[in-house]
Amino acid sequence: MEFLTGVKEKETLDIRQIAGGDYEGKTVKINGVIHNIRDMGEVAFVILRKADGLVQCVYEEGKTRFNLKDLKEESAVEISGTVAREERAPHGFEIRMDTVRILSQPDEILPIAVNKFKMHASLEARLGMRPVSLRNVRERAKFRIQEGIVRGFRDFLHSQGFTEIHTPKIVARGAEGGSNVFRLDYFNKRAELGQSPQFYKQTMVGVFDRVFEVAPVFRAEKHNTTRHLNEYIGLDFEMGYIDGFEDIMAMETGFLQYTMELLGSEYKKELDMLEAALPDVGRIPAVRFDRAKELVAEKYNRKIKNPYDLEPEEELLIGRYFKEEYGSDFVFVTHYPSRKRPFYAMDDPMDERFTLSFDLLFKGLEVTTGGQRIHDYQEILAKMEKRHMEPKDIASYLMIFKYGMPPHGGLGIGLERLTMRLLDEQNVRETSLFPRDVNRLEP
Amino acid sequence: MEFLTGVKEKETLDIRQIAGGDYEGKTVKINGVIHNIRDMGEVAFVILRKADGLVQCVYEEGKTRFNLKDLKEESAVEISGTVAREERAPHGFEIRMDTVRILSQPDEILPIAVNKFKMHASLEARLGMRPVSLRNVRERAKFRIQEGIVRGFRDFLHSQGFTEIHTPKIVARGAEGGSNVFRLDYFNKRAELGQSPQFYKQTMVGVFDRVFEVAPVFRAEKHNTTRHLNEYIGLDFEMGYIDGFEDIMAMETGFLQYTMELLGSEYKKELDMLEAALPDVGRIPAVRFDRAKELVAEKYNRKIKNPYDLEPEEELLIGRYFKEEYGSDFVFVTHYPSRKRPFYAMDDPMDERFTLSFDLLFKGLEVTTGGQRIHDYQEILAKMEKRHMEPKDIASYLMIFKYGMPPHGGLGIGLERLTMRLLDEQNVRETSLFPRDVNRLEP
Repeated sequence: MEFLTGVKEKETLDIRQIAGGDYEGKTVKINGVIHNIRDMGEVAFVILRKADGLVQCVYEEGKTRFNLKDLKEESAVEISGTVAREERAPHGFEIRMDTVRILSQPDEILPIAVNKFKMHASLEARLGMRPVSLRNVRERAKFRIQEGIVRGFRDFLHSQGFTEIHTPKIVARGAEGGSNVFRLDYFNKRAELGQSPQFYKQTMVGVFDRVFEVAPVFRAEKHNTTRHLNEYIGLDFEMGYIDGFEDIMAMETGFLQYTMELLGSEYKKELDMLEAALPDVGRIPAVRFDRAKELVAEKYNRKIKNPYDLEPEEELLIGRYFKEEYGSDFVFVTHYPSRKRPFYAMDDPMDERFTLSFDLLFKGLEVTTGGQRIHDYQEILAKMEKRHMEPKDIASYLMIFKYGMPPHGGLGIGLERLTMRLLDEQNVRETSLFPRDVNRLEP
Repeated sequence: MEFLTGVKEKETLDIRQIAGGDYEGKTVKINGVIHNIRDMGEVAFVILRKADGLVQCVYEEGKTRFNLKDLKEESAVEISGTVAREERAPHGFEIRMDTVRILSQPDEILPIAVNKFKMHASLEARLGMRPVSLRNVRERAKFRIQEGIVRGFRDFLHSQGFTEIHTPKIVARGAEGGSNVFRLDYFNKRAELGQSPQFYKQTMVGVFDRVFEVAPVFRAEKHNTTRHLNEYIGLDFEMGYIDGFEDIMAMETGFLQYTMELLGSEYKKELDMLEAALPDVGRIPAVRFDRAKELVAEKYNRKIKNPYDLEPEEELLIGRYFKEEYGSDFVFVTHYPSRKRPFYAMDDPMDERFTLSFDLLFKGLEVTTGGQRIHDYQEILAKMEKRHMEPKDIASYLMIFKYGMPPHGGLGIGLERLTMRLLDEQNVRETSLFPRDVNRLEP
């Protein structure tokens, strides 16, 4: 009988192992994809692309035991060779090639220059070729940083006593209501794709006090803008026993502080490659919605058209105002008008036209919506009645209030938007691996 | 201007803080839900339920400054009192109550005894009341352990150089084909819900070599069995530069070893509560599909009806065989027949009727499917042709082979099934927070 006993050591080495170890003059094996070949005549530089970077390999005619012509870009290979110190090469070393074992060959030559540092191709062209254009080192670096943001979110919340949950995405009814839901037939029942884990994460506050979820959310919005996706990753958390919605903003600030530190220490290579500067998140200003509108109206000489809504341009100006006046890339805008928030938002007892809620703007773009929720059963029934909503439609959600819920609140962060702003990208599609928009269902 | 500067210290303490600190004789504040009140006359035991356990609080008539009658089960409260050592109480301490601040009150009394250690209610009844039945300490413990499994998966793979990815769930075409897909209208295009991130995770091997994803998968199977869900969480990984599909099995064994150790150290309280014993994963036997069928046919005196398929009862017997003969709860069954595997599975060059693939059985239930994939463009085209599949239907997937892919493989684990077997539950619905089955779209 054969047995599996765990991960076996591989003969092939990583960049980290070679760069950090005592391999100079030694023969090593390394695998990767042929990124680029620069043939200089008697010598050729064969650049190998690996997950953690590029490696310069040197082909020397007569010494290297294979025919250079057999190598194609995008072939996967295993190279055996001698490590030599070379300060001008990436990671400070190169490999003098001895033999090459070809693991796979492409059928055709790439129609897009993924091996250029910057791909000079339109977003449209890059998205159409996404399965291969992501191989470009700058393109993929964005998604390493995105991984870091998600790690920061989870690790920080775990340290704060949050439990991770997984809630269904096929639901009977969405949390936000409205028309922007995808509908499907679920064994002859009408179902929807979840616009948010809102009902479920509140439910789980009754179970674990503090919960979070990282999962897709679906919005059937027909807007085809630079900041909307029809499917995106929501970083959601919800917490009980809050003294006010300020606790939610404080927790988000803590997450941002933790994450920027993590990115600075473990994702520096990718940040440098993208020339991205980490924002200062030591302190984040908070301003009331109505006050924010006044401030930008005064400073930028702008008329307030609708006192109950923020236009995208107004968000941009609020971002600009707080950058100019306080040096902050982030600003919490609090006390959104009740009519712009869902029924479960808690109204401000001091002025019921407004809610105990907030958005977080990052360089003038909303990246988070959050706030305190109603926890009292009669209060939520009363608010539903005011909005002509039918309690029996969402009876299994209302159950949690009927049988008792602590005061609580939470937020949802759009991962792609947060990544987009961090990297100063102009289109949210840049920071979604395989974006879904009104026209794009593939790749 | 107000500023947020990060998470503020709270006055209220956790169980861990009180149990681990020097609080005896000191006054503390603690919050939670009234789990249970045992009124003994002049004294009452008020059990507080918190995310991390139960706390015994003691009400003494004349000393405690509130009326016991004002307390209701499932009220959220903040209690102030003196810590006293009490070995018979959970965590070795109790709180002699001084004052109580009521944070919220339920509207009705719970119709189901969530405060009993074991809820004596049918699965049907518990699922119908899921938003509140999950508050039971044993019910919720299952999902803490599930959190631990997911943490183990991610942390282990991260340590092995894998990058986390997020891929779309609304897709043009599913990876497995067949009829068990949920269809939806996507802006007047025909779309499906992803049955697996298969195409995307393979694509990402071309970018990051090793990737993983934790995300919902959707299967419109009409089977209403104890082991099927129509939406579940897939733990998927895919890795490049493998020497064979044994590398995938070795990586999964490593994950199981890491995770069982994590559960044993950080989730012991929950495992004890559920009387769950961690399986030995030091070595996991592997047996060929055809050989496994023979072994159970011989030992249990059973006829082989269909040489190309495993019936559920056969899986159970294979599990039993390897438990009896090798003391293992797990067994890898390898070389599944080609006709039972999707087109992208790599056939065994030694015998093309079989594939370089495997299932992992845990106590006789399939919890994982994995294997090596075809990486050569012409080879995948040839296999599609044999199956009468149309390359242009999945052109954006085939693109990765056309332009070159390293040898690779991977697997998908069903999180709820793995949790179910670990906890010896009889129905997979027990280990899904809000299960989706043919009849269940709510809660």
